[in-house]
Amino acid sequence: MSPSPQESAELQRYFGERLITQNVGEEIFSFAAGIFPTCRSITGEGVRRTLREIQSHIALEMSEVPTGTEVFDWTIPREWNIRDAYIKDGEGAKIVDFAQSNLHVMSYSIPVRKRLSLAELKKHVHTLPEQPDLIPYRTSYYSEDWSFCMTHRQLEALQDETYEAVIDSSLEDGFLTYGEYLHEGETDEEFLLSAHVCHPSLANDNCSGVALLTHLARRMVGLKTRYSYRFLFAPGTIGAIAWLARNEEASSRIKHGLVVSMVGDGGGPTYKKSRRGDSAIDRAVAHVLRHSGLTSTIEVFSPYGYDERQYCSPGFNLPVGLFQRSKHGMIPQYHTSADNLSFIKPEHLLESYSLIVRTIDIIENNAVYCNTIPKCEPQLGRRGLYGRIGGKKDIATENMAMLWVLNLSDGAHSLLDIAERSDLPFQVVRRVAQVLQAHGLLTNPRAAIFGSFATGAAS
Amino acid sequence: MSPSPQESAELQRYFGERLITQNVGEEIFSFAAGIFPTCRSITGEGVRRTLREIQSHIALEMSEVPTGTEVFDWTIPREWNIRDAYIKDGEGAKIVDFAQSNLHVMSYSIPVRKRLSLAELKKHVHTLPEQPDLIPYRTSYYSEDWSFCMTHRQLEALQDETYEAVIDSSLEDGFLTYGEYLHEGETDEEFLLSAHVCHPSLANDNCSGVALLTHLARRMVGLKTRYSYRFLFAPGTIGAIAWLARNEEASSRIKHGLVVSMVGDGGGPTYKKSRRGDSAIDRAVAHVLRHSGLTSTIEVFSPYGYDERQYCSPGFNLPVGLFQRSKHGMIPQYHTSADNLSFIKPEHLLESYSLIVRTIDIIENNAVYCNTIPKCEPQLGRRGLYGRIGGKKDIATENMAMLWVLNLSDGAHSLLDIAERSDLPFQVVRRVAQVLQAHGLLTNPRAAIFGSFATGAAS
Amino acid sequence: MSPSPQESAELQRYFGERLITQNVGEEIFSFAAGIFPTCRSITGEGVRRTLREIQSHIALEMSEVPTGTEVFDWTIPREWNIRDAYIKDGEGAKIVDFAQSNLHVMSYSIPVRKRLSLAELKKHVHTLPEQPDLIPYRTSYYSEDWSFCMTHRQLEALQDETYEAVIDSSLEDGFLTYGEYLHEGETDEEFLLSAHVCHPSLANDNCSGVALLTHLARRMVGLKTRYSYRFLFAPGTIGAIAWLARNEEASSRIKHGLVVSMVGDGGGPTYKKSRRGDSAIDRAVAHVLRHSGLTSTIEVFSPYGYDERQYCSPGFNLPVGLFQRSKHGMIPQYHTSADNLSFIKPEHLLESYSLIVRTIDIIENNAVYCNTIPKCEPQLGRRGLYGRIGGKKDIATENMAMLWVLNLSDGAHSLLDIAERSDLPFQVVRRVAQVLQAHGLLTNPRAAIFGSFATGAAS
Repeated sequence: MSPSPQESAELQRYFGERLITQNVGEEIFSFAAGIFPTCRSITGEGVRRTLREIQSHIALEMSEVPTGTEVFDWTIPREWNIRDAYIKDGEGAKIVDFAQSNLHVMSYSIPVRKRLSLAELKKHVHTLPEQPDLIPYRTSYYSEDWSFCMTHRQLEALQDETYEAVIDSSLEDGFLTYGEYLHEGETDEEFLLSAHVCHPSLANDNCSGVALLTHLARRMVGLKTRYSYRFLFAPGTIGAIAWLARNEEASSRIKHGLVVSMVGDGGGPTYKKSRRGDSAIDRAVAHVLRHSGLTSTIEVFSPYGYDERQYCSPGFNLPVGLFQRSKHGMIPQYHTSADNLSFIKPEHLLESYSLIVRTIDIIENNAVYCNTIPKCEPQLGRRGLYGRIGGKKDIATENMAMLWVLNLSDGAHSLLDIAERSDLPFQVVRRVAQVLQAHGLLTNPRAAIFGSFATGAAS
Repeated sequence: MSPSPQESAELQRYFGERLITQNVGEEIFSFAAGIFPTCRSITGEGVRRTLREIQSHIALEMSEVPTGTEVFDWTIPREWNIRDAYIKDGEGAKIVDFAQSNLHVMSYSIPVRKRLSLAELKKHVHTLPEQPDLIPYRTSYYSEDWSFCMTHRQLEALQDETYEAVIDSSLEDGFLTYGEYLHEGETDEEFLLSAHVCHPSLANDNCSGVALLTHLARRMVGLKTRYSYRFLFAPGTIGAIAWLARNEEASSRIKHGLVVSMVGDGGGPTYKKSRRGDSAIDRAVAHVLRHSGLTSTIEVFSPYGYDERQYCSPGFNLPVGLFQRSKHGMIPQYHTSADNLSFIKPEHLLESYSLIVRTIDIIENNAVYCNTIPKCEPQLGRRGLYGRIGGKKDIATENMAMLWVLNLSDGAHSLLDIAERSDLPFQVVRRVAQVLQAHGLLTNPRAAIFGSFATGAAS
Repeated sequence: MSPSPQESAELQRYFGERLITQNVGEEIFSFAAGIFPTCRSITGEGVRRTLREIQSHIALEMSEVPTGTEVFDWTIPREWNIRDAYIKDGEGAKIVDFAQSNLHVMSYSIPVRKRLSLAELKKHVHTLPEQPDLIPYRTSYYSEDWSFCMTHRQLEALQDETYEAVIDSSLEDGFLTYGEYLHEGETDEEFLLSAHVCHPSLANDNCSGVALLTHLARRMVGLKTRYSYRFLFAPGTIGAIAWLARNEEASSRIKHGLVVSMVGDGGGPTYKKSRRGDSAIDRAVAHVLRHSGLTSTIEVFSPYGYDERQYCSPGFNLPVGLFQRSKHGMIPQYHTSADNLSFIKPEHLLESYSLIVRTIDIIENNAVYCNTIPKCEPQLGRRGLYGRIGGKKDIATENMAMLWVLNLSDGAHSLLDIAERSDLPFQVVRRVAQVLQAHGLLTNPRAAIFGSFATGAAS
């Protein structure tokens, strides 16, 4: 679904060459690869390091929320950091080593340094018996515990001897860290783009989302937009809750939003609608996916998933949906060591990126126009607007789009309404609307406010 | 679909052990068998005897409406009673005998005692040529006539001789009789449960319905409920019309209702919606059937059927649906001698009974709650409400149910709304709502009025 | 789908014998054959001659709109007339002759008289390479040009020699002509029936529609109707626009409407809904087609097609749909010389005519009644209204129809609502409504105004 040259040109007319180019996929992949090795959790140095990587591309503002701070029903936990961890066998050989994979230690494991029998050790080991070559990803944020994660084959190979288990971690008063970046548009109405940054070395979940949003933000710098775009990089659940608690009033400015996660694999795309179900974002993504040529899935809202759970809690009920490729939890790589850099691909990242840019294009340009000659059709032919005899398929589509836009531009239908009813791509509908407006056949009653978007001009 | 032990326990928490036990099916069958032999019609001693049988279980109040009373567009007819009837052949042998089956005489046949040729006799005989071994059930309430009903084989075996036809019946001024029983709840809003009592020895139609409602009423005695439950046992059509005419104003208290008929066979279940189509009762039954594991059918309202025709006439338009197993008229046993005690089974009666109890459970407990922590999710884990690692399927379902209840309990969604949207059984949704309420995470704004139902306490 | 004798009788009770008789199809065909040879365009003598043919059947009023008149965004063009046209080869033989087929000249071709080489000639020739034996139909109303149309085989047979091309046409100030006829009903609310009259010798498109409406209008003469019926015969697009421009205010009286075109072939029927999508006309046609036994298609509105484009432009948004058989543009005969008199058949014309008459029947008779005995059912039996034992299928249908009409006649449901909800044919529902009204069981609150239609009396 990488856009055709013609489509790229089309999008560029709106968002400038910065937004979609063929090398975006490689850029995003490269950034994801750079942050992949870092051990992240919901607090700690790993998150900070990741946010500093983002700062090397955009002017990310970092926030630190102290341990013990109450955020709605939750309390910021102690900060967790880890330096090293391993299991040594009776002969002192490291049979499991955190330096090899940070998935080997359950996130938020308390410090440990003890010798124990195989039977005792097994009480602190997670494996995946049905995927015996993969290390699972496990967490225990809110109940004090410790565990190692390993492949089931590793576990089965262990002898009945005495082991030394060491987790050199710390759980101390500190901070929860999140970063945000605001692309300011002509209005202070916001489009929220949110990615969780709390997972360790899992490439798709969510190095991919963090990388995609970082590069989207970077490419939008200097771009004139109608909405302001808030990019939020926060730990899952507690990070989103902390942000909402500290921005309770400001959150009412969010008119559209996407949680972006797992966007580097070749599955889906999958879109889960906001709790409202008929928000502009829901309709915009559905439209983009329908015309993408991909086998996509639109799911209704459910209260299980990523941070849309918080944005869509009843006290906020924000119009925020979840954009991903394969659905979380539905693929064998999910939350295992198989979610590594070979699982994500530049072409999928480019595709995901393009779909999100097209969605933004709709949100930005979804104006309601009025036909200036509403009684009978205007005579398109004498204005040179009507395809001549023979007409190519593209011309036929444009002709139909013009008739649809003129017929439905009665002040009650937006361009997206028209695109949906005519089953034509939004881009075509928007393009002919601009042509018709240029010929004086359409007016945009909101032109005084949103004039620049009527023409989609980039600065 | 007999409830699992766990489900039984669950229901009992709401309606007490009285309501669902494994022996209910046998009890209902036994009562149906007891009233089966009685010859009933729309008036007469058969109805009275049947109502007295019901009185042996519940404090049924009997009403007698005199012949000639005008009830809306109808007039109470003369009372019909029958002592004996037979056809004797030329040698005086009874070839058809009312004592063998009360279906042999068309209901409301006028008295007859005459000798006639085979040709003359045939004008007064009904058979079922396509079901030659069955006796049909026929009536002629409002036009004076007489007939015998017999198997087609009997008719074909008749010789061309002189027969003696005797119907020792009477049509005299008297009464139409119906019985009703009110289980008083905390409010005077009523749930109507109505069964017709006018059919002679037809087991499914409607000894089954009469027996089911009798035992439901009996087991509800002493049970604390939100609604008052009116059990009405009346002759079909004219009985329901008489009741409505004498309770015109009171009928406005009926907020939910079911006509219950033919509930002992293994077909269906079939539910015909009320004329309104979206009443609480319609949604509740549909939900119960959807989660019953049975191959059920939901039909839209049509003005042909049982007494819902009267309850749903436009001048009343009550929210009353029709609950049955096989759809009336759609099975070969319908209105024939094959609708006997071998056609109905205790297990089907238990199943039907359980489905109705579950429906009542929804109507009783379908409250609207408010999430007390509507902004972001409450932290279920620290309250011990969230399933731990590994989680069994049941725990996963309960977790999802908790998230759904919290997410949608915004004062605008009832528990049934939530059950429908989440596609979870109402029982699970209601159970977790109680748990969440016990932890202070939900409030019921109507608690002051309907407090006892929030906890479903039985007295 | 020609109506059965019983159905014909039924319809005649409403619209009199004039409306549907078996010879209607032949009459319509004969009229279509009579106007087929005339060369029509959007202006000129051909249109006038056609309208005069209509005048021989109904009191058509003709209007002449002068060249240069502005009608909304359009201007009435110069009047085009053509006397002769041909191409002669080097030896003076006419290889293409307008006298053979008026499709040979592109409509609105400017006068030409010149000698030219084959190469030059080819620039002014249209053919259909994929249908090499057919002459295409082409127009160029608003850009000055000239062309011949011929079969592709003709073109391929041409030698490289010098040709003489002659088009003896004129483009001069004159008039655009349209005709209209108003059948006056009891109210001035109108039902618009519109056919385009601008195509030359194309039988289905639209001699068929012109002929059908002419004969419908003729047969309605003297018929008492609720609505007034406006029959409009106008050139496509510019004619409809001119009419709307000159009747802008009056157009608000149009409560229902059909554009009628291509009604003589055996395809479809195809109905395209009005822009409103849920107008009475949309529901009425859909109901008729659903019960027609034909494989029909209902399409949603789109802004491409015939003059519904103008009637449904946003400034008018009239409830006007498009009735046709095969969908325009979807059959190989469309806009070619194959759309000749052998393509249309009397039986198809009768079928189309009958479907339109049935639609009118619904629009005329779609009253809202009130059940006079709304509480419980009225006792149909004692009024002789209820089918007796044994009942034939027709009686069963009528019984159900009576129950439906009584149940839903609460002042909120029209007969069409009832027909749709019960899935019974409107004719049956209307018939039992009349019977019930005759028995005093229904009243029509609008009887004072529309009394004659309650009984559907023809004058």
